[in-house]
Amino acid sequence: MVVGLYVIIVYDIMEKRVSKVCNFLRIYLNWIQNSVFEGEITEGKLEEIRIGLKNIIDKNEDSILIFTVSNKKWLNKEILGIEKAPISTII
Amino acid sequence: MVVGLYVIIVYDIMEKRVSKVCNFLRIYLNWIQNSVFEGEITEGKLEEIRIGLKNIIDKNEDSILIFTVSNKKWLNKEILGIEKAPISTII
Repeated sequence: MVVGLYVIIVYDIMEKRVSKVCNFLRIYLNWIQNSVFEGEITEGKLEEIRIGLKNIIDKNEDSILIFTVSNKKWLNKEILGIEKAPISTII
Repeated sequence: MVVGLYVIIVYDIMEKRVSKVCNFLRIYLNWIQNSVFEGEITEGKLEEIRIGLKNIIDKNEDSILIFTVSNKKWLNKEILGIEKAPISTII
């Protein structure tokens, strides 16, 4: 088994590209909040995400943050208020 | 020296409370993108943040994600596109 990375992606992109980015990230990760996706993924798939996002975004207008931890157990997640994506798994 | 947690906070809140949440989080953390703050912080200060945010938000309308890692070195950060907050330190 390939040990996966745990990734959190937060995007701040122009309205006209939001649905494209969102639909692309859904292929790989779980949507957990407006503009936030997370999930366990291999380094190879993460590289596909980087390439895919670079093709979609305008690098002069959009900004995407990619946080990764090598082991999911190192990352703790809490939610205050409502959980926007109730089907997502709490770490 | 108290060893700090590294925290990422992403909020999805009603427009009318955005500036209040933003100004509150600025006291403790660095703004790195629309709706995203990060920084190194003690558990005590993080508890202050939790209490403060709970006082500001409407728990039926707003959602705040708090990710923490015990050691900053476990977390990797990349940016695709523009860096919205150029003064922030890249991990």
